[in-house]
Amino acid sequence: METTDKMRVDVERSIQQSVEDISETIRALLAERGIFALNLISSPGSGKTTLIEALLSRYEGKGTVAVIEGDLETEIDADRIRKHGVNVLQINTRSGCHIQPIQLLNALRRMDLSDTRLLIVENVGNLVCPAEVPLGEDKRIVLLSVTEGDEKPLKYPLIFQTSDVLIITKTDLLPYVKFDMDRVRRAARIANPRIEIFELSAVTGEGVPAFLDRIESFGDAKRPRP
Amino acid sequence: METTDKMRVDVERSIQQSVEDISETIRALLAERGIFALNLISSPGSGKTTLIEALLSRYEGKGTVAVIEGDLETEIDADRIRKHGVNVLQINTRSGCHIQPIQLLNALRRMDLSDTRLLIVENVGNLVCPAEVPLGEDKRIVLLSVTEGDEKPLKYPLIFQTSDVLIITKTDLLPYVKFDMDRVRRAARIANPRIEIFELSAVTGEGVPAFLDRIESFGDAKRPRP
Repeated sequence: METTDKMRVDVERSIQQSVEDISETIRALLAERGIFALNLISSPGSGKTTLIEALLSRYEGKGTVAVIEGDLETEIDADRIRKHGVNVLQINTRSGCHIQPIQLLNALRRMDLSDTRLLIVENVGNLVCPAEVPLGEDKRIVLLSVTEGDEKPLKYPLIFQTSDVLIITKTDLLPYVKFDMDRVRRAARIANPRIEIFELSAVTGEGVPAFLDRIESFGDAKRPRP
Repeated sequence: METTDKMRVDVERSIQQSVEDISETIRALLAERGIFALNLISSPGSGKTTLIEALLSRYEGKGTVAVIEGDLETEIDADRIRKHGVNVLQINTRSGCHIQPIQLLNALRRMDLSDTRLLIVENVGNLVCPAEVPLGEDKRIVLLSVTEGDEKPLKYPLIFQTSDVLIITKTDLLPYVKFDMDRVRRAARIANPRIEIFELSAVTGEGVPAFLDRIESFGDAKRPRP
């Protein structure tokens, strides 16, 4: 039994090491090409794909955005994104609860990234597992919809601790649900005092421009001045 | 590298075996005491705790219900349930994306179950990982709120395949979101033709009695006739 435990710890350590190595490979590949990368994480149905669509409305036709979609099964999200005329690839994780770095690396190697400046990775809908897995992203963004409850940053702290930005989505539903915006902001800042918080509704468009401006300024800060 | 892979497979197999052994131990413990057990699974914020509260309103004061709450952190849900005067215990999984059978077994051993007839386990909010982990339950119930989208059974099929019952929650929000009830029913039946489907709003109470009646009939079917 002790041997098995020791073996398990060794194997887990070796897997974790290889995860981090591959993330570093992704980071280097993106840096070399001057690509700014976002990793979008949330529960299923918090509005990740809809937010990406809103984001694409600003970039449409520019060919500088690439999107990677993560789901257990189906091409539903990739099909939605493809309609916006951008470079998109679907990863199916089957029973996997997050995108593995090796899956992302293989996807990036299959894509033509020559014009890409912004890469958006939509992770599997899950507020737990993706928090532990770096994908070489520049910014990690966690979404929380107002229908999910304002206590979530207390109950699922890890993803809020490791994210740069929190987006409170579906604010158009605020009149119909119990959700205290001050309470969720306090809870998020307990987990992570440095997290930047945006509130928006991709349906009405309220709050979307401020978030898109911030994404652009992140990207500008990464790219070298001409 | 091959040795590591072989080791990993062996270790994973041994872990899976021990998971199944412990689930069987839980199942035997519950059977011996004539306890009917539910395992509630959904994304964070789909309404598991609110549904349990609705369920308790029928059993309140009877002392025959015990509840186990699963969350990464906090006692928030256990505190909510405790107010209903029932036996409740909180499991904190820290970074764990589901309740482990050993955590449940240890919790059950710490509780006084002498009067318990119905055990409700609220799993960690996650539509992926808990699907692979049997907890010795009699019925597995997956919840999906109308705000999460009607395509989720296609994108996350495993949990729908392994559940006995699907509850569509938050139907009071239907007027404000895009959600096609026929589409979600078709999608769920593609994953699992035998799944029983209920629609309800724990806020308005609509649909709740039909579901509670069904829970009672499940429990009656398990217990031996006097």
